[in-house]
Amino acid sequence: MTLRKVPVRVDLVIFAIRDGELQVLLWQRREAPLKGAWTLPGGFVEQGEPADEAARRILKEKTGFEEQAYVEQLFTFCDPKMDPRGDLVSIAYYAVVSASGESWDGTFHAARKAPKLVFHHGQVLDRGIDRLRTKTEYSTVPLRFLDDEFTLSEVQGVYEVLLDRQLDKRNFRRKILALEAVEETDDERRVGAHRPARLYRLSASRPYLLKEKGILFPF
Amino acid sequence: MTLRKVPVRVDLVIFAIRDGELQVLLWQRREAPLKGAWTLPGGFVEQGEPADEAARRILKEKTGFEEQAYVEQLFTFCDPKMDPRGDLVSIAYYAVVSASGESWDGTFHAARKAPKLVFHHGQVLDRGIDRLRTKTEYSTVPLRFLDDEFTLSEVQGVYEVLLDRQLDKRNFRRKILALEAVEETDDERRVGAHRPARLYRLSASRPYLLKEKGILFPF
Repeated sequence: MTLRKVPVRVDLVIFAIRDGELQVLLWQRREAPLKGAWTLPGGFVEQGEPADEAARRILKEKTGFEEQAYVEQLFTFCDPKMDPRGDLVSIAYYAVVSASGESWDGTFHAARKAPKLVFHHGQVLDRGIDRLRTKTEYSTVPLRFLDDEFTLSEVQGVYEVLLDRQLDKRNFRRKILALEAVEETDDERRVGAHRPARLYRLSASRPYLLKEKGILFPF
Repeated sequence: MTLRKVPVRVDLVIFAIRDGELQVLLWQRREAPLKGAWTLPGGFVEQGEPADEAARRILKEKTGFEEQAYVEQLFTFCDPKMDPRGDLVSIAYYAVVSASGESWDGTFHAARKAPKLVFHHGQVLDRGIDRLRTKTEYSTVPLRFLDDEFTLSEVQGVYEVLLDRQLDKRNFRRKILALEAVEETDDERRVGAHRPARLYRLSASRPYLLKEKGILFPF
């Protein structure tokens, strides 16, 4: 038996909410094969580097974001026929970043109306959208679309985009506060002539999953 | 930059329900390093072989089961420090098989009281148990613990093991039939002096996920 030894890639679905919709960062190939075709950002894992670190490194290269971004492994594609550049393993991740970034390497596209992607990247994107939808039901991952401090209106805006419907403001506030998913800060933000809005942050006691306690986001 | 080229393994969490509990098939290492230590079954992906096929191949070698088993990718471990045999990628899968198999290569252990496993295998097992619990809530994966035809009592038995509590027989039957997850066959099975029990099979119209329709198993 010949052992199959292959290079390992990480490929990233990088989500942000921009212009009131879920968007994904794409990149146009600058070299053959398929020069000009759209791809997900990605790169090869280096000698001695765990894949998780490679995903964080590439995320930083493409967006400038480090710890504040949420990164989660999605699925691994390992089929000798999937990539014309040769046999490889592609470990796919998805990342959730705030729209406030300024050093994007690539362009954003509506996630559900993205251009055709090369290789297996269309499947990766589909899995990313599906996972994000699932996590919207029982985790605080959607809050990672916001900066470290945010207003409750901003939180509501994120959920309205992800759920694709309008939510009642009073109900939404009552529920998100009851879940203890966010906590008040001492800061306020004034926008225009409105009353200053209280700023919140991700609750330290519930940093990620609400699933353990059997709580579904009831929005 | 030196490209990291590594062998690819698949490692399998093979679940069956035996002796009224969730069990997992383990294997004792026959060679150094760590001779005698417990591991998950697994093996290297061969030249030209997709990882999914490797998982099916190894499942067949270890259990005799082919198509009738449910197999799903779990998580990929890729850290140069995790395995003393050298740098590699381990793509973990879990499989759900019926207890009626006869060609087990390994021994079964209670999944939640398994002996200490080598390398990263303890983490793989934990993820497998967690994923199976999640899938119990919204998929028909638990039905794959049964043979192709089964009685409703057997289905109830599977859910009682996975949920770790007794279920009311009348309620359970009403709910599982309302979900249309199973369908009647023309066959019956007689056990002892009891009335013959109707045999059911997995519903062709809902072979796997009920999630798309927003249905949670309400048991």
